[in-house]
Amino acid sequence: MSDLIELRDRMRAFTEERDWAQFHDPKSLILALVGEVGELAELFQWLPADAAAERAREEHLRRRAGEELADVLLYLVRLADVLNVDLAEAARLKMANSASRFAPEAVRGHAPEKR
Amino acid sequence: MSDLIELRDRMRAFTEERDWAQFHDPKSLILALVGEVGELAELFQWLPADAAAERAREEHLRRRAGEELADVLLYLVRLADVLNVDLAEAARLKMANSASRFAPEAVRGHAPEKR
Amino acid sequence: MSDLIELRDRMRAFTEERDWAQFHDPKSLILALVGEVGELAELFQWLPADAAAERAREEHLRRRAGEELADVLLYLVRLADVLNVDLAEAARLKMANSASRFAPEAVRGHAPEKR
Amino acid sequence: MSDLIELRDRMRAFTEERDWAQFHDPKSLILALVGEVGELAELFQWLPADAAAERAREEHLRRRAGEELADVLLYLVRLADVLNVDLAEAARLKMANSASRFAPEAVRGHAPEKR
Repeated sequence: MSDLIELRDRMRAFTEERDWAQFHDPKSLILALVGEVGELAELFQWLPADAAAERAREEHLRRRAGEELADVLLYLVRLADVLNVDLAEAARLKMANSASRFAPEAVRGHAPEKR
Repeated sequence: MSDLIELRDRMRAFTEERDWAQFHDPKSLILALVGEVGELAELFQWLPADAAAERAREEHLRRRAGEELADVLLYLVRLADVLNVDLAEAARLKMANSASRFAPEAVRGHAPEKR
Repeated sequence: MSDLIELRDRMRAFTEERDWAQFHDPKSLILALVGEVGELAELFQWLPADAAAERAREEHLRRRAGEELADVLLYLVRLADVLNVDLAEAARLKMANSASRFAPEAVRGHAPEKR
Repeated sequence: MSDLIELRDRMRAFTEERDWAQFHDPKSLILALVGEVGELAELFQWLPADAAAERAREEHLRRRAGEELADVLLYLVRLADVLNVDLAEAARLKMANSASRFAPEAVRGHAPEKR
């Protein structure tokens, strides 16, 4: 079974059991997502860039990062549910779109620049 | 097969084909995630809160929201891969943890307050 | 004297006294800013939209919001310093630009839409 | 005259001339702030950490960064106004608080860690 469907259903049940659907309008859920992304950023902010991946292999940071990644995912799944978006399908579409926009031979080794 | 594993593997292949792994340190990926969350926020920022869910049912906004949700998910999946975190497992652990922290009878109808 | 110059100079001295300039590259400072914006978002996330302004007049929330707004401002000032940007001047330029892009008679009462 | 007061007054006039105060509840303004922080993050996301400060001295990136920093500042100033927070005063209080929490001799050369 799809992980994303399973998580969506569990978040839906969790929300209903607590009568929290009243708080889950899109703008509130985006703010909650922002809060969790902020906690993720705080874990890494002062680590030297080249050491961040290595430091993340240490058990404490890896566990904390996992918790914050999970929080972001759960609010994302909940937001997609409220917006009636099929998250896995949207991600597949996006990947197909990116694959055609960024042909490997054209962009190899160069980060696309924002202007 | 798990959606999250499938997306992880596709992002991994996409990245390797373009030689982009060199850009995917944790701090850079979190900034990319922040950029996508920002685009999601911009879609909803000026919508009246009570109309946001309804407006999101309109096809244009729903499609745009789906694209931004997908972008957030894809960077999240990529970040988890770089950090060697099993995202689905982390989300299940987090849900179990939240279920025990927020007993339905104690919190029903009340949003947990941040202090 | 300009507030923004005063805060810039105080942040600069604060940083030097602690030998923290080594941590203040642009990407790290943006992540720190994101962390503070996340804390601000968490304060308001579950408040009903129409009650948020009113609730913010309560002393506890107003003080907490002031602290988070201050944190965001201080990292913003520090980031501008590191990037050698005159923040007040940049803001005046931006306001002049927005005034010419959004003529009052053309946009009155309508929020500009992101597409 | 204080920069922050000047910008607050100009944003207030700008908003009133366009009848946009109706959109400026706290949650909407935080989402707008998040959108601008996202644009700032996108400018720097793929730059190598050690090159980011140097690259920011190039005129194009410096000007773009200035625009995004300005956008973040302007929404921050507007949000503080709506919340009736004196931003300069809040920042001074916060600096005094940080100075006493982080004694130079105790933290010199070490980034405070989030746990």
